[in-house]
Amino acid sequence: MKAVQILTLLFDGYTALDVIGPYEVLARVPQVKFYFVGDEKRDYKDSYGLKLSADYSLDEVARGDVLFIPGGFGIDSILKDERILEWVRKVDSTSTWTVAVCSGSLLLAQAGLLDGRKCTTHWRRKKQLAAYGVAVKDERYVEDGKFITSAGVSAGVDMALYLASKLASDRIAQMIQLGLEYAPRPPFDCGTPDKAPLEVLEMMKG
Amino acid sequence: MKAVQILTLLFDGYTALDVIGPYEVLARVPQVKFYFVGDEKRDYKDSYGLKLSADYSLDEVARGDVLFIPGGFGIDSILKDERILEWVRKVDSTSTWTVAVCSGSLLLAQAGLLDGRKCTTHWRRKKQLAAYGVAVKDERYVEDGKFITSAGVSAGVDMALYLASKLASDRIAQMIQLGLEYAPRPPFDCGTPDKAPLEVLEMMKG
Repeated sequence: MKAVQILTLLFDGYTALDVIGPYEVLARVPQVKFYFVGDEKRDYKDSYGLKLSADYSLDEVARGDVLFIPGGFGIDSILKDERILEWVRKVDSTSTWTVAVCSGSLLLAQAGLLDGRKCTTHWRRKKQLAAYGVAVKDERYVEDGKFITSAGVSAGVDMALYLASKLASDRIAQMIQLGLEYAPRPPFDCGTPDKAPLEVLEMMKG
Repeated sequence: MKAVQILTLLFDGYTALDVIGPYEVLARVPQVKFYFVGDEKRDYKDSYGLKLSADYSLDEVARGDVLFIPGGFGIDSILKDERILEWVRKVDSTSTWTVAVCSGSLLLAQAGLLDGRKCTTHWRRKKQLAAYGVAVKDERYVEDGKFITSAGVSAGVDMALYLASKLASDRIAQMIQLGLEYAPRPPFDCGTPDKAPLEVLEMMKG
């Protein structure tokens, strides 16, 4: 079986669960190997100080089977970074799948890769994504050709299970779900704006 | 408002999502500060090579408001480590909450902290945990006094939202859930042994 290379972009201000949710699912797919890639080969911090290490710089890895862009508050700071955008376009030109979690889809849109496509993002980012003239959907994740984009943060796990089924098989994806005991039962039911109490929604917007 | 120190034990062979699921929830609680603590001050790797950095050694941090033990295949290698067990007992003697995700509860049981208590763990670890003479429950997470233990891997997110409501308030926990867009919708419904297709369960056991 051929190795499957997943290239994950790291940047300062990524959301840790955007990265690790899909990682935990996809690293369990047979033959998958993760490559964490950064503008430079160094540690990158999320908003709360957690460090993840980019073992490769943009110059070192430029082709892969899956291009994976996580989101986070830091995404805005790299949206105009031509070196990163060029790398995203280059890797995408070789990828079988190009995927993004949460606000990571903004980088794909900025790179022009989502032109004319259906996609999604975190609920707070939908207007920003729609401004690229793409068709933003209210789904947990959206597949359009080789592109899969997901809603906010935790949606990356759902998307990754779907991608695992495509990279391997439904059986493998189901084994991974069982291994992660992914039978979610949150103590509250307020994960989307239409379900959250108005007070909570107002506090988030404020 | 007083700072809330969460001491997280790292060891080689942790499960990344056991750590980062609760981290992503709890780091968003106002005043929370995470301390990643290891036997030594160094990087620790999960089963697939992901590095998380322990910024503190056991000697450097010995008291905190929350003691958090993640699970992973590596847990078996530290169950008889007297230095770690001693540290766990010491931190627990100062903690307001002592929590474990997945197989992390085995370390609490080995340290004698779950004696006479209700608790839970990953479905594959329930027999191993029950051998400590504790009352193992079939719940997503189990609270008994200041101890909260969760089922496998992804259950840490559900437990962490509950803990966030205790550390702060229901409103804060709900804001965090909305921020993470945690309205899970997995593509398959097989996250527990009773729901998984028999073939998948057999493959996992094999």
